[in-house]
Amino acid sequence: MGQDERFEIRIIGYARTPWRRREDAPHQPSAASDAAGVLEILPELAPGLADLEGLGRIWIVALLDRSSGFALRVKPPRGGPKRGVFATRAPNRPSQIALSSVALEGLDVARGLVHVRGIDLLDGTPILDLKPYLPIVDAWPDAGHGWLEPYLEAGVEPKLRKPYRPERS
Amino acid sequence: MGQDERFEIRIIGYARTPWRRREDAPHQPSAASDAAGVLEILPELAPGLADLEGLGRIWIVALLDRSSGFALRVKPPRGGPKRGVFATRAPNRPSQIALSSVALEGLDVARGLVHVRGIDLLDGTPILDLKPYLPIVDAWPDAGHGWLEPYLEAGVEPKLRKPYRPERS
Repeated sequence: MGQDERFEIRIIGYARTPWRRREDAPHQPSAASDAAGVLEILPELAPGLADLEGLGRIWIVALLDRSSGFALRVKPPRGGPKRGVFATRAPNRPSQIALSSVALEGLDVARGLVHVRGIDLLDGTPILDLKPYLPIVDAWPDAGHGWLEPYLEAGVEPKLRKPYRPERS
Repeated sequence: MGQDERFEIRIIGYARTPWRRREDAPHQPSAASDAAGVLEILPELAPGLADLEGLGRIWIVALLDRSSGFALRVKPPRGGPKRGVFATRAPNRPSQIALSSVALEGLDVARGLVHVRGIDLLDGTPILDLKPYLPIVDAWPDAGHGWLEPYLEAGVEPKLRKPYRPERS
């Protein structure tokens, strides 16, 4: 303990999304509900995508490779005091891991492609894992939002660092 | 592409749980709803736990360090044909990443301790990240269970590889 402990982890593919710059990416998947993306899974792992069809949503565990270090307390986009980084979904975090559930729109197992909607990842983000979203273990609508609750009740929206300007590609 | 792509990732702490052996660990967090555990976060990262209090649940992103390789198609514990590994929550997966939401029972930021209930991780499992469970982005009760749906509707329970024998510690 005390010193950095690290582990080598495998990348399974990359996200192709409309979000090219950090300042354009949405703060939460819900803010990106219309953004379509494609997950390109490495050819040797593509057969592991079988049976995803029929699922409404999937989890993407991704590596925020363009996050720039981290602070232990971060300023939330909805305002208020700084909060402990583990009590937020801020992208600058010790392990650089992102978790988002996205709607599954289409699947091409042979080519290793997963079409999704509602993606908040930057284009080119490495993907570490895909998992089925299973309401039986994942849906807890009454869990409460902790410190975020009053902001949600007051309808406070996240403030983007810069106004959104769509990329022309 | 084509070859293994890997990334070095930071471990933020370790799980202390009642589960010592793979054959005793539950197949899903829901099967472990009474299991209490403690997450020990590295002292230098402990201040990042601030503001977790008040949350009902948290996400644990963990590294299944005792998983033994992976197959692209795996036999689900509820039976039926093999399924693509990314369509299951099987522990033997390419990136060895586990995702579980657990109930938050207590917090000691100064000592870096998070008390949780409903934990399905083996004792000593490295933790990669903690995140708040936020129903606004995480709860999708109507998402559907895909290939698992008929098993759940028929009330089929996961079969453990060996009968559960509690550890005497």
